[in-house]
Amino acid sequence: MGGDHGPPVVIAAVARAIATLPDAVSFLLHGDEPAIAAEMAKHKQVVARVEIRHSDKVVGMDEKPAQALRRAKGTSMWNAVEAVREGQAAAALSAGNTGALMAISKLILRMCADLERPALVTSIPTPRSVTTFLDVGANIDCDAARLVEFAIMGEAFHRAAHGVPKPTVGLLNVGSEEMKGHEEVREANRILRLGGLDLDYRGFVEGDDITRGAVDVIVTDGFTGNIALKSMEGAARFMNSELRNALTSGLMATLGAILARPALRKFRDRMSPPPAAPLLGLNGIVLKCHGGASDRDFAQAIRVAADLARSDFSAEIERNMRRLPAALAEQAPPEGAPAEGDTPQGAAE
Amino acid sequence: MGGDHGPPVVIAAVARAIATLPDAVSFLLHGDEPAIAAEMAKHKQVVARVEIRHSDKVVGMDEKPAQALRRAKGTSMWNAVEAVREGQAAAALSAGNTGALMAISKLILRMCADLERPALVTSIPTPRSVTTFLDVGANIDCDAARLVEFAIMGEAFHRAAHGVPKPTVGLLNVGSEEMKGHEEVREANRILRLGGLDLDYRGFVEGDDITRGAVDVIVTDGFTGNIALKSMEGAARFMNSELRNALTSGLMATLGAILARPALRKFRDRMSPPPAAPLLGLNGIVLKCHGGASDRDFAQAIRVAADLARSDFSAEIERNMRRLPAALAEQAPPEGAPAEGDTPQGAAE
Repeated sequence: MGGDHGPPVVIAAVARAIATLPDAVSFLLHGDEPAIAAEMAKHKQVVARVEIRHSDKVVGMDEKPAQALRRAKGTSMWNAVEAVREGQAAAALSAGNTGALMAISKLILRMCADLERPALVTSIPTPRSVTTFLDVGANIDCDAARLVEFAIMGEAFHRAAHGVPKPTVGLLNVGSEEMKGHEEVREANRILRLGGLDLDYRGFVEGDDITRGAVDVIVTDGFTGNIALKSMEGAARFMNSELRNALTSGLMATLGAILARPALRKFRDRMSPPPAAPLLGLNGIVLKCHGGASDRDFAQAIRVAADLARSDFSAEIERNMRRLPAALAEQAPPEGAPAEGDTPQGAAE
Repeated sequence: MGGDHGPPVVIAAVARAIATLPDAVSFLLHGDEPAIAAEMAKHKQVVARVEIRHSDKVVGMDEKPAQALRRAKGTSMWNAVEAVREGQAAAALSAGNTGALMAISKLILRMCADLERPALVTSIPTPRSVTTFLDVGANIDCDAARLVEFAIMGEAFHRAAHGVPKPTVGLLNVGSEEMKGHEEVREANRILRLGGLDLDYRGFVEGDDITRGAVDVIVTDGFTGNIALKSMEGAARFMNSELRNALTSGLMATLGAILARPALRKFRDRMSPPPAAPLLGLNGIVLKCHGGASDRDFAQAIRVAADLARSDFSAEIERNMRRLPAALAEQAPPEGAPAEGDTPQGAAE
């Protein structure tokens, strides 16, 4: 029921997705039965793969999470997450209210990590593949242990979503030397370096490594991650609009742009954000699809959900999470703080 | 003597700059006299405006700041900054080692703000103008008072460099609501809201506001600022390379690109980073020009230095800095921490 478009987009997406998904994948659709049934009449091929679970209530797109939570029971969103807890569904997918989805998922499924709330992960395009980047806004204050948890979860997600057997992991910082950055990232770096966890950790990376693809997974706190993501989105939007201006600035430029149109369109598609973000750190798979998703986006999100559900994702996270207390205990503060003195951390050159 | 090119670029830049600067602007060139004189022979028009100050020593581009500082006395960099302290120069400009320039400037000129080291400011293009953005990497751990100091210095810089009478100021955060973000930004927001300073403060802004131009000056700590800047630079580089790939992907695209070449070149120029970054928070004007600067870039940096030197920049900063202690004292912690509960701070929607 969520997102800007509701059932029409969801049903059309299911129709798209079943064309490429194995027969074993089927769908529970939670929401207003008449509205769903009306849309299904337009996509008869989905009927055999879908079961409708009626609910009278929905979570509003602009309800505050606390407010949504008080009356969440029996909403389509609640029922979708509850179906994961009961083992009826292998994953839940929603284009609805992000904050409410986090709060409801946390309440029903409980966290497997010691986080304030589920971490938000996104995928950023790079020349050869994508970078898995987290947390992009859910956990503002993160100590070293939280950053290590992000590394564990992001690594398992990258393997499940992209089939990379052993993803490489980096920690976002203002320079690559050990003494750079604030205490939390330096401590997380020491824990990850110890090697007690099953991770291919490569050390510190910088902001421009996100789009360079220096490592597969880049970890940061939710404050920095949200600002880095939005800064990049803003820069991309600005460049697209400047490019449009440049390519309509005269006859020759316009003519050139018309000839290059298919190439420019492919370029734009490649730059568009991924449709689905898993909420990481829950005992169960929940994905958030962005509210304005088209049926093509939502179908892509369904495929990611199916990939995660079929992978060892949750078991892998659990295995590494069990190793974490030992790694934390082993990590004693170093003898004397590293000498920083007048070294300009992260200065431009 | 600094930068990737040394005297050839600096002298050519002086030649470029004097063509547009008032006659009253003259230059002290610190460095190896024979090398400077040899270059000046190629640009005779600069002779009347230039005085050479010979120095035997230079700071190496890759010396650590602490190491550079120990033997800095008598280097061309030291002498350039010392000339500012002695009132012989109104501003110092260097394309040399950033860390050494910061350390030497801090030692000779002393800080007017309570910062670890001078703040680095950059200018980001927006549809209608530029955003002044700081700190981009010099001060990693910033409390609320430091963020307010950045606001004071960035505002004065923006007025001096861009002639905007009353620049608007925003604080970078993960959302625009008062309860968002970590304690330091919330406290800085309260201090700036009190109105004890002479600033047009507009509240919190988000990462995509940097390129949107929502406000003239955007303030953040050096950790977040460095990562946001490098993320945007990386995104821009990635988009440029993808665009190049798209526009060489076939005959029509290539033909289109050739027709649109002047427009595409203008687009690239518009996206290139600014040549000069002032070091803010010093009792005196010092600017860092990037090491790879061309003579055109360096001439532009000279113009920014001259604009700053002719403005009321330093006096304006001093005036607001004197108001700061009262503003800090007035700002008492609010009754009980703001209720955050399950509100996802900075969640994607």
